[in-house]
Parts: sequence; C-alpha cells; structure tokens
Amino acid sequence: MPVSPFRKLLPYAEAARQQGKIVYPLNIGQPDVLTPPAMLDAVRKADVAVLGYAPGAGTDSYRRKLESYYQRAGIPALFENIMVTTAGSEAILFTMLTCLNPGDEVIVVEPFYGTYTAFAIAAGVSIVAVTAHIEDGFALPPLADFEAVITPRTRAILICNPSNPTGYVYRRDELEALLDLCIRHDLYLLSDEAYREYCYDGARATSALSLVGGEQHVVMLDTISKRYSACGARVGALVTRNPEVWLAAFHFGQMRICPPVLEMLAAEAAADLPSSYFDGTRAEYQARRDLTVTRLRAMPGVTCPVPGGAFYVVARLPVDDAQKFGQWLLEEFTLDNQTLMLSPANGFYHTPGLGRQEVRLAYVINRTDLAAALTCLEHALLTYPGRVEPELQVAATVEAVASLSV
Amino acid sequence: MPVSPFRKLLPYAEAARQQGKIVYPLNIGQPDVLTPPAMLDAVRKADVAVLGYAPGAGTDSYRRKLESYYQRAGIPALFENIMVTTAGSEAILFTMLTCLNPGDEVIVVEPFYGTYTAFAIAAGVSIVAVTAHIEDGFALPPLADFEAVITPRTRAILICNPSNPTGYVYRRDELEALLDLCIRHDLYLLSDEAYREYCYDGARATSALSLVGGEQHVVMLDTISKRYSACGARVGALVTRNPEVWLAAFHFGQMRICPPVLEMLAAEAAADLPSSYFDGTRAEYQARRDLTVTRLRAMPGVTCPVPGGAFYVVARLPVDDAQKFGQWLLEEFTLDNQTLMLSPANGFYHTPGLGRQEVRLAYVINRTDLAAALTCLEHALLTYPGRVEPELQVAATVEAVASLSV
Repeated sequence: MPVSPFRKLLPYAEAARQQGKIVYPLNIGQPDVLTPPAMLDAVRKADVAVLGYAPGAGTDSYRRKLESYYQRAGIPALFENIMVTTAGSEAILFTMLTCLNPGDEVIVVEPFYGTYTAFAIAAGVSIVAVTAHIEDGFALPPLADFEAVITPRTRAILICNPSNPTGYVYRRDELEALLDLCIRHDLYLLSDEAYREYCYDGARATSALSLVGGEQHVVMLDTISKRYSACGARVGALVTRNPEVWLAAFHFGQMRICPPVLEMLAAEAAADLPSSYFDGTRAEYQARRDLTVTRLRAMPGVTCPVPGGAFYVVARLPVDDAQKFGQWLLEEFTLDNQTLMLSPANGFYHTPGLGRQEVRLAYVINRTDLAAALTCLEHALLTYPGRVEPELQVAATVEAVASLSV
Repeated sequence: MPVSPFRKLLPYAEAARQQGKIVYPLNIGQPDVLTPPAMLDAVRKADVAVLGYAPGAGTDSYRRKLESYYQRAGIPALFENIMVTTAGSEAILFTMLTCLNPGDEVIVVEPFYGTYTAFAIAAGVSIVAVTAHIEDGFALPPLADFEAVITPRTRAILICNPSNPTGYVYRRDELEALLDLCIRHDLYLLSDEAYREYCYDGARATSALSLVGGEQHVVMLDTISKRYSACGARVGALVTRNPEVWLAAFHFGQMRICPPVLEMLAAEAAADLPSSYFDGTRAEYQARRDLTVTRLRAMPGVTCPVPGGAFYVVARLPVDDAQKFGQWLLEEFTLDNQTLMLSPANGFYHTPGLGRQEVRLAYVINRTDLAAALTCLEHALLTYPGRVEPELQVAATVEAVASLSV
C-alpha cells in the first residue's frame, strides 16, 4: 500500500503552521458547514442501555428512512436494495470485493478520487484509466476510449458523479450511453454519488440507479459525509437493484458485523431532513464556486473549467510541477504571513505524468478566507521560480510524460 | 465470500419466535451487560458543531487515553504503537493486509473465531489450521504441529487469547514458546485480545505485547466491543511496537480516512474507567460460567472443559450433528414454549468435518434465563432423535470426516 499522495504535503503544512503562518486548507474536502443539529440531538436523546450490534445491512429503521430519502430524490431504491456501510469508503471496498475477483479490471475515468487506488490494491483488482481532459471541461471521454481498453478481465466501469475532483456533472445522455456500453459488454456500472445534492445553476444530478434497463448492472455508492457535513459519522450505503450483488455485498457486511450504531442514529435523523435543507448549503457552495472560478480565470496562465457540482475545481496552473509548487507555497511563500495548501492533481491521475500542472482546490472554507487564499495563490503564481508560461505548458507536459516512461 | 456459518440458523430462530416461542440466544457474543453510562454521557455532552474527519490513526486524545489504559493493564503500548480501527474487525483486516501478501499463509489455531476466514478471503490470504482438542481443554497444540505446516509462504500465526470460542487462556510459557517459534521462522505473532479482562478464578491474561523480544514480531488486535459491552460502538485498535508494521497499517487506515468520531468519544470515556470497573462484570460472568459448566457436565454424554476466560464454552454433545440438532431445537423442540439457539462449532473449525458434535454457548444472558436455556438443552438432548451415545461419538466423527473427504 503506497503512501497516500494527498498526505505528502502534510508535514510541510504542519511546519508552516508551527512557524506561525496561516495556512488555508483548500486541500481536503472537509466542509466548514455546520452539521445539522438534529443529527447530534438524535444521538443525545437516544435511550441506549446496551450499545449492542445492529444488523449487518444496517438498522431496519435507518434503511426505511433512507428509502424515503431516495424516493424524495427521485431515485428508485427500496429498503431491500440498501445495504448500509461504514462510510462511503466501505461501500467502495465492498463493491470492488463483490463485483470483481482478484486480478479483474475496473475502468475508472481519470482524474478520480485517489483513494479508489488504495481500495483496488486492498481488493486485489487492477484499475485501468480512461482520461477526461481539462480542455473538454472533464466531460465523459468518448465511448471508443472505453471500448479500446476493455479486455476479458474487465468487470466494471467506475464513475463519480458529480465528480470528485473535477466537479463535472454527467448528463443523462452520457450516463445512458455508458450504461448501454456496460450492458453490451456485461459490465457493472459503479456510480459514486456522494455529492448528489451539490449541483449548481439549477442543474440536478442523475443517479445511475434511475437509468432504464440498469437494474442488473448498476451499483450506487453513497455516503452522508458530504451531504450533511458529517464526515466524521462513518455512515454510507451500497445500493443496487441486483439482488445477487446485494446478497454478495451483504456477506462482506456480515464479516464486519455492523456499521457504527450511534452514527446510524444520527444518519437516521438526517434522512428526515426535507429537501429544502440543502438549499442554503447549495447556495453557499455556488457562491464559493463562482468566487473561486472567477478569481482563477483572472490569473494569467490559469485554465479552469466551470465545475457544475461537488465542491472542487481542478485548475491548470502555469507551473513546472504542481507538487513542487505546493511544497514551495508551504515552505517558501508568504503573503502577510498567509499561504494555502492545495492538492497536486497527479494524485488523481492513474496515468503517470498526467496532471503535473494541475491542482484540485476544495472550496470548503468561508468566502473571506477563500478570497484571501486565492489572493495568496495569485501572488504566488507571479513569484514562483518554477513558473512556466502558458505556451510552454504543453511542451513541459510532454517532456514530463517522456521522462516518466523511461 | 461464503454465507457466514453463524447465520444459517437465524431464519429458523426467526420462525420459532414468530410462532411465539421464547428462544434463548446463546449463539452470539452480544452481552446483556449495561454499557457504562459514562460512554453515552460523553457523546451527549460533546460540543460538536462540525462532525469532521478525525486523524487516520484515531484522535490524539483517544490514543493518549488508550496508552494509559494499556499501562494500567501492564501492557507496554505507547501512543505511537496504537492505531485506532473501526472495531476489532478492521484491526483483523488491516493486520492481514499489512502482514501478508495475497497468496501468503497464516496459521490459525482452530477452533477459531469464524470471521477470520472471511477476512482472509477478503485479503486474499490462506488460512492453515492447527487443531486444539477438546480433550486437552483446547490448550496450545504442540509446537511440532505448527512446525509441520510452516511453508515458505507462511508469514504469521494468529491466536485469540482468551479464546473465542473455547475460552482458553494461554499461559505465559505457551506464549513464549509460540513467540520463540515465530522468531526462529521470522513470522508475525498476531494476537487477538478482545476478551482480556474476562479471566476467571483469579487468573490474568498475558498480552503477547508484553513478551520479551517480541517487539518486531507481535501485532495485538483489540476492541472495546466486549470489554465495555459496547459492540455497536465500532472502535478497536491495532497495536504493534514494530514501526514498519504500524506505518503500513496506517496507510490502510488513510484509505478509509478515519474511525467513527462520535464513538471514539465514547471509547475515550471508557478508557478512563478504573480497573475496578471490570470486577463486577467479571464476577457475573464467572458465576454464569460456573452455572453453565456445572449444568453441562451433569448432562449424560456431554464433554465440557472449564474455560478460563472470555464468555464462551465449547461442549461436545451426544448428537449426530450439531447443526441438525441446532435446527431441530428451533423447529421441533419446545419445553414450556421455550427453546435455545446455539452455535454449531463446525463454523469455528477450518478442517472439514471437525466439530460436528460440538457447539459454542455464549453465557451472555442473565442467570435465570441461562438456567432455563440449559434446562431446555438438557431435555432436548434426551429426546433428540439423532442422539448418539458417547461411545459411538468417535466413530461418528471418523465417519463424518471420511464422508467429507470423498
């Protein structure tokens, strides 16, 4: 198991903070939004004498509440389709263990949530990447790109919608085309929908579960972490209308006996919140997104699509190497004693060398701090010794890939 | 992933309860003991505005408390040796993923906690069993039995001490001999110590971590589930003084980001409880053990060692097949509208055919109900149509093994 690429800058951030610098954390998707008080109240009021095991698929009461939540969201998921997991993490692991055997291949659209790689290693399966491009706003790559990498060992295609890290929201016709491909090649379509509620400009995310004809093929991965700003409550779900897949996943669930019981109580209270609960948070994220994108696009040499959802943006910076730049920000740079931490995007690409000039920024801090962080970035890009002018960027990338292939 | 053998009788128990029968649950280690109110109070009083991620190795404050708890228990585990996990389950999984590569072998003393098998499947490693025998009270098998199955792919020996399911408490000299074997063959000694506090007759469990010379070899697996009757709070620990193993396990911990945060608060409060907290619970379990063993030994044809710890007993019954007997108890038998559910021990053996006449009983219900359950068992054994007289038992086992080998 390799070191998480997202952790490489942490020691430098720690050191910067110890020097008294303010380090704005744009590197991790930990929102500052308040967790709904109803969630914590539910735990406070719980009448628990013996904190015993729960059923392996989660408590019946929570599964019923989740069913209602999905119905309100227009997603055809019933009680018996829902297996509660210990956070989205476990849903990813169980999905890989269930749908793939060791040595099988899963196609993932890159850039992707880097932790998928860790779970693939743990499950003994291989990731094969199909690349989405910043020039296309990270839209679904052409189906031919998927067809080109399908082998007899391919078992599934995994997407994240809305996407972490790109914020791209898949259109229904893209998803239908992808499902059609999966049906033709008898593959599973695995859809991580952790950011469902956070789509902007009036758009709505389409759940893969709602696609016609996908009953046997679609496995949806879910979590309450981002939805309710409750990352520390480790409650997620694996949802599928394929009863054989559900049962196989349930056997893995029995292995670890049950999800966290107190946190399922909190999740149950959250599932009762009306759809209108999301309106305020969504508006806040949209304002932050607008601020972030507007500011980034005003910086010379920066390329930045407009993400339609989630709370991330991937931008290409006029730098030689985003990892070095990220370290330099923490070690060398300061503006009024402030700097920022970002995620170099190489950790989101499976193909070596890609993303070397890209970074992911999470707009999960308040707008005042966010603006200050972006001001730091703007100044830093002008003074960074490894700055590369835009016309040189493509050449730099080609060179980087060539050097890695040696 | 096969169906958990412990679940096979559940539908029959469900049906019996729906018929209005009282079914005493001696099948699962879910204690009826009250969870310490301090644990739930800590969660109630928590001042949480944003329920955010915790560090991957657990909160610093909980790790410090755990260090104190281990010091009080005489176990040389420091802050930096402790990695908090999502229950003991995750400690088992991470230990297997960390200490073994796919295809490697771990030797486990059988009968063993059946879930080890599931985690081994998930981690892609093979279990090789060394058999402990009921005639020896399930003591550590001779070292020659371990030597005989060590291959170039063997990486570890896994024990559970005090043992689930046998209740056997390993003596220090047994553990020292086992560690010596591990050192000579460069193996890890993996020690699941979930039941540490529950040893009877004044005995104390020896932690493998406290063995001299074991620093590089020992990984201890822990959980608060049984210790504080808090099975639903999914908080465990992987503890090792080998910094390389710790770091590798931590990388798996980063994969799933963090353990459940609210439940770590509960665990932190539990770690503050004085050692005297266990006195009352231990006395109660000892009284239940005495009741169980005394009653079992008075039943004609039943063999039952005296377990020194945990809250289980494995007994050999005068029946043709404990699985059939367990089903018959639920489907056919009733005494004043009562019956019991037990765990057929075949699920605890890796070697096919072993344990066919054995059952595990968990003495986790109050003594009145426990006595009633044992009265049911006594009557059931006298009327079960598949009763086998003791002198025929060995022959029946030989026949069973022979039929399975075909």
